[in-house]
Amino acid sequence: MPNSSFAPTRNDSFLRACMRQATDHTPVWLMRQAGRYLPEYCATRAQAGSFMGLATNVDFATEVTLQPLERYALDAAILFSDILTVPDAMGLGLSFAMGEGPRFAKNVRNEAAVAELAVPDMNKLRYVFDAVTSIRKALDGRVPLIGFSGSPWTLACYMVEGAGSDDYRHVKTLMYSRPDLMHQVLAINADSVAAYLNCQIDAGAQAVMVFDSWGGVLADGAFQTFSLAYTARVLRQLKRTGVDGKPVPRLVFTKGGGLWLDDMAALDCEVLGVDWTVNLAKARAQVGGAVGGPGKALQGNLDPNALFGTPAAVASEARKVLDAFGTPHTDASTTGPTHIFNLGHGISQHTDPEHVSALIDAVHSHSRALRQPVARN
Amino acid sequence: MPNSSFAPTRNDSFLRACMRQATDHTPVWLMRQAGRYLPEYCATRAQAGSFMGLATNVDFATEVTLQPLERYALDAAILFSDILTVPDAMGLGLSFAMGEGPRFAKNVRNEAAVAELAVPDMNKLRYVFDAVTSIRKALDGRVPLIGFSGSPWTLACYMVEGAGSDDYRHVKTLMYSRPDLMHQVLAINADSVAAYLNCQIDAGAQAVMVFDSWGGVLADGAFQTFSLAYTARVLRQLKRTGVDGKPVPRLVFTKGGGLWLDDMAALDCEVLGVDWTVNLAKARAQVGGAVGGPGKALQGNLDPNALFGTPAAVASEARKVLDAFGTPHTDASTTGPTHIFNLGHGISQHTDPEHVSALIDAVHSHSRALRQPVARN
Repeated sequence: MPNSSFAPTRNDSFLRACMRQATDHTPVWLMRQAGRYLPEYCATRAQAGSFMGLATNVDFATEVTLQPLERYALDAAILFSDILTVPDAMGLGLSFAMGEGPRFAKNVRNEAAVAELAVPDMNKLRYVFDAVTSIRKALDGRVPLIGFSGSPWTLACYMVEGAGSDDYRHVKTLMYSRPDLMHQVLAINADSVAAYLNCQIDAGAQAVMVFDSWGGVLADGAFQTFSLAYTARVLRQLKRTGVDGKPVPRLVFTKGGGLWLDDMAALDCEVLGVDWTVNLAKARAQVGGAVGGPGKALQGNLDPNALFGTPAAVASEARKVLDAFGTPHTDASTTGPTHIFNLGHGISQHTDPEHVSALIDAVHSHSRALRQPVARN
Repeated sequence: MPNSSFAPTRNDSFLRACMRQATDHTPVWLMRQAGRYLPEYCATRAQAGSFMGLATNVDFATEVTLQPLERYALDAAILFSDILTVPDAMGLGLSFAMGEGPRFAKNVRNEAAVAELAVPDMNKLRYVFDAVTSIRKALDGRVPLIGFSGSPWTLACYMVEGAGSDDYRHVKTLMYSRPDLMHQVLAINADSVAAYLNCQIDAGAQAVMVFDSWGGVLADGAFQTFSLAYTARVLRQLKRTGVDGKPVPRLVFTKGGGLWLDDMAALDCEVLGVDWTVNLAKARAQVGGAVGGPGKALQGNLDPNALFGTPAAVASEARKVLDAFGTPHTDASTTGPTHIFNLGHGISQHTDPEHVSALIDAVHSHSRALRQPVARN
């Protein structure tokens, strides 16, 4: 327990909401909150020279993780890193060309390439775990720190395609023509992701999130077989307790996965993230559970593009999301339905930082108002 | 009624299934079935010089529409055209650069640009209606001819973005910051699409389909307001009877719209198309209706990328789709749940034409087998 001396978490609303415990406001954080929409982020990235230069330098990674917290009253921090660090550690050679997405030097499309894959030595990812510890120290108990990884399927998409894709042709060719190879890749990915997240927990992560960013491109049936089953395999292997002896909630987000919420309800995790196509009232009824009963906390789900509206429109859209979920339970003596406000995908680089202020303020004030007893005539 | 002399339709299984009438097999056609995966299509396109050269020439459009019917036992033909002909006729200047998607010379992002929009003179789209009549004649009653248009929202996406997009930033900026302008654009689009489809019906189209290709990028709530309401406005204005006096079924396909099937069930149309993320058994239970009762026919929903599997895998995936829907009703005396087999999106240019043969054969043979009474022990 090298790091059990971390400062106690003062604002633990995010962790409490993850565990379906009552909070006095709806906690909010934003996927990709440390990102290019912030001028201070761009300045640090310019210093670092490249995205990977930023992600692999503990000081830079700590600095950019904390930047959005200086501007906004966010209720959680998330490790600054990329979902593709694991396949990079497998030797595939990750790079980010300027103005483009991620790209691997090698791709995995045939039996020989699959045979070379193995769970990577976690020491190759030491820079990530060091960043987790550094960030947790720098946070000094302000808000909790979330660790994360791409899901086995999402990593496989990039590993097979070799880059982003708009049709997932290569990965689906492998999946439909050689499902045996696909399963091999996914099993290795799942065990790698589990080891990776466990190391993040040991380094100080207080919650861990699996980003199944591309689960939604799969057909019904294929999703359950090639994505969900391997996310479940990750979850089964995760540590349940952090270095401070507290439970580590596990969040799973499948973009485009709204149709499979019933399947995802069976996952051994605390929180399900949903994108903006999902009706939060229906999702709460499906998986949110009752007061005193089991269920999942829900995270989401504002369309990131709603931030392109006027600040007044942003606040209005944020209130709509909170109203759709409805009042979370307020009984401090038990668990019940809870909501963590987020976007339904990463924030766009084209977002005006002032609009993010309007968003965070609206979430905090309206979610407090929702919890006030209504005067009845 | 200039064209009431069209030959009677010999294989009307598609039209019957649209009207929820029993058929002896599940009819099948493929979105973008006349496309670049066919070498004969590429040859004709090369002759035409460009995509628009192909689409605006009645003889070429007729030729390529019929090409897939020469190879495969498809149960319907669909007009060869593009979903963006209507905004082109509005004066936005459509072009297709080689290897790229569609692009407009002008885009519609502000009040001045919106003020210039109007329902176009349908004579500017005469080439489309002439193609419909020419194709219907050339089909000579072999299978029915489907006409189509993009949905008001989908047209608006391209009109505002000026091209395809991966984040829909401009159209969503307009929608969230100036919803009044967005509604103006959508109202004009809806009335244009209705006029356009009615002209196709008058020219000989036997069914019409609205492609809401980008409805799925909208948030819950925004979809109902900005896409579904305007699709409904189109449907309200459509002719119900074709030039031969027969009913003209109306199909609506929202890619990524599976979560909104309950909302779409209220549309005044006969068929709902669904993509591969939808479970057809659930969709049938939701909107398919009972024997003798009201309901929608369902169209879909194989992942086009499944065609990258081996022919045996293609056939197996096709059977899974048919099995998911289950046996359509077989009572010739009444209406009931029916299924039209299709992909969940347009066929990829990288598809092996032989795999399409495997698909069509599997659909026909397995769907006939499904209808056989099962011997019970």
